Amino acid sequence: MHHYVGVDLGGTNIKIGLVDEQGKPLAQDSFPSQISDGPETVVKNIAARVDALIRSAGVDRSRILGLGIGSPGPLDMETGVILSSSNLTGWNHVPLRDMVSKATGFAAILENDANAAAFGEYWGGAGRGSQIKHLVMLTLGTGVGCGIVNDGHLVHGTSGFAAEGGHVIVEPGPAGRLCGCGQRGCIEAHASASHVGHIAQDRVEAGEASSLRQVLDQGKPITSKDVFQHAQEGDTLALSVVDRTADYLGIQCVILCRLLDPQLIVFAGGMILAGEFLFSRIRESFARRTWKIVKDQVRIVPAELGNDAGFIGAAAVAWDGHKRGKLVLAGQ
Amino acid sequence: MHHYVGVDLGGTNIKIGLVDEQGKPLAQDSFPSQISDGPETVVKNIAARVDALIRSAGVDRSRILGLGIGSPGPLDMETGVILSSSNLTGWNHVPLRDMVSKATGFAAILENDANAAAFGEYWGGAGRGSQIKHLVMLTLGTGVGCGIVNDGHLVHGTSGFAAEGGHVIVEPGPAGRLCGCGQRGCIEAHASASHVGHIAQDRVEAGEASSLRQVLDQGKPITSKDVFQHAQEGDTLALSVVDRTADYLGIQCVILCRLLDPQLIVFAGGMILAGEFLFSRIRESFARRTWKIVKDQVRIVPAELGNDAGFIGAAAVAWDGHKRGKLVLAGQ
Repeated sequence: MHHYVGVDLGGTNIKIGLVDEQGKPLAQDSFPSQISDGPETVVKNIAARVDALIRSAGVDRSRILGLGIGSPGPLDMETGVILSSSNLTGWNHVPLRDMVSKATGFAAILENDANAAAFGEYWGGAGRGSQIKHLVMLTLGTGVGCGIVNDGHLVHGTSGFAAEGGHVIVEPGPAGRLCGCGQRGCIEAHASASHVGHIAQDRVEAGEASSLRQVLDQGKPITSKDVFQHAQEGDTLALSVVDRTADYLGIQCVILCRLLDPQLIVFAGGMILAGEFLFSRIRESFARRTWKIVKDQVRIVPAELGNDAGFIGAAAVAWDGHKRGKLVLAGQ
Repeated sequence: MHHYVGVDLGGTNIKIGLVDEQGKPLAQDSFPSQISDGPETVVKNIAARVDALIRSAGVDRSRILGLGIGSPGPLDMETGVILSSSNLTGWNHVPLRDMVSKATGFAAILENDANAAAFGEYWGGAGRGSQIKHLVMLTLGTGVGCGIVNDGHLVHGTSGFAAEGGHVIVEPGPAGRLCGCGQRGCIEAHASASHVGHIAQDRVEAGEASSLRQVLDQGKPITSKDVFQHAQEGDTLALSVVDRTADYLGIQCVILCRLLDPQLIVFAGGMILAGEFLFSRIRESFARRTWKIVKDQVRIVPAELGNDAGFIGAAAVAWDGHKRGKLVLAGQ
């Protein structure tokens, strides 16, 4: 049995894991990123933690075929360089792949974190098994992350800016909300966890009746969790926000099917804890709007890897990179 | 120099051509399809015409590495079978690839006609040259055809229903027009040549003032050609239809860039004869709506192969299939 190392580089925490060739994690660790200490120190920490993890798991280093890193972008994936990132303050043009390869001694590969998470679900999560080759993942968080697997490969496009599904326009009219990216009407501005909270709060503050007012009365902002909780308890405004969110997500699914014809559309992020209350509505919006001329075979399902998707996905990228000769061992 | 044969199977005419390995046509022919005569007769005609074309071009058969067929679908591309088609009445479950391979003696491959046309533009048209690897083509005709080239390969999805870009929803609200596919708000229902004519006609018939009324007064339906002509002559209604069409096409381009990050978006079909009058408006809509956070590198350009895209594209698919070992020589 061979193994792969996955490194999930976040702005707050770094998660690492040792994953077998079927996508199952054997051992994992998590520690503060300390991004402000700079790349050299962070890479030194990663290497020490990876080394300790391998020892504690009792795995022979010769059985480890590669190391994958999932990082916020934008990146230059060919050269393994972080160009810049709003989540990694001060990290500009950091050749992270080669730095980590040198420090750990493993051949390495760098991938966008949202792509890596999607590839993790493909390899070891909702898409596990040889029947799935085409999958799209959408993570409903502060933003809407996206990764696309087509015929078993991540879709990168010309400059690595493909699979930015959070910025597909689903509301092109005057009702389109301004997105952080500068576009109007992006799915992110209508259905991300943070915007679901904002939309409900805007309506309550505008004077609509809602049990959500008690959240504001406690001096707290309205979150998507509040919206789903109050909707499930029957609040009319909260329910209308949930319905509209699911409606937009259904439109997004139609667009994804028309362009990519995936077998699975996987939703991730905290909002999916709402379970069937959310998924049944997304599927209903999709079914109402999608093709009548042929039957869609897509399944719309929750992600399975939770917070482990990042490092499992990074390991998945290493597994794929090994098969395709894309791993790079930096000179010692 | 090697060559490839392309066969563009249409409901009315069949176009065939002999194409060199740089995508340049050497010789071509066109003849009535006579679909109602049935597959056996049509295949016999194709084989005879291909044979005559090769002889007339003076090309040695041993220099021809494969034959590609572009056909309306849906198809089973793996097995080379036409499942059914509204344009090929009575053709159900026709194993066309193997029939044509047997009749001509060439290893063959079957591809959806819109995909083939996109691959033709990639190989020998607007995307010609080794720098282009990512391209989307949209053909504005009766419907809106689409093909997607990602990293040098056509995107098929799970069942060959990817790249149905004509049915991306660009108007999800109540203004969304009913599309022939049963969805509402598809780009096809808002920006295909036929719908552009319908939209203008609906507005004139509803009583809006327009110089287009003279078309109806002559007992003729309003076509997209009329709309563009009257718009260029300054008719307010026609101009507003053109502006709205270009606006939707700009939205479509944003969606394509966010999911696929292509280098080129290529528009084809009769409507592109309007030239910069149309393209400048599409680019303006795109620029107004697209990302502010990174600069899009995509170019929005007219197709270059015109009516030859079909057979050149079919030959392109044979060229690619030869490289990838995907051509099938049916038993004699």
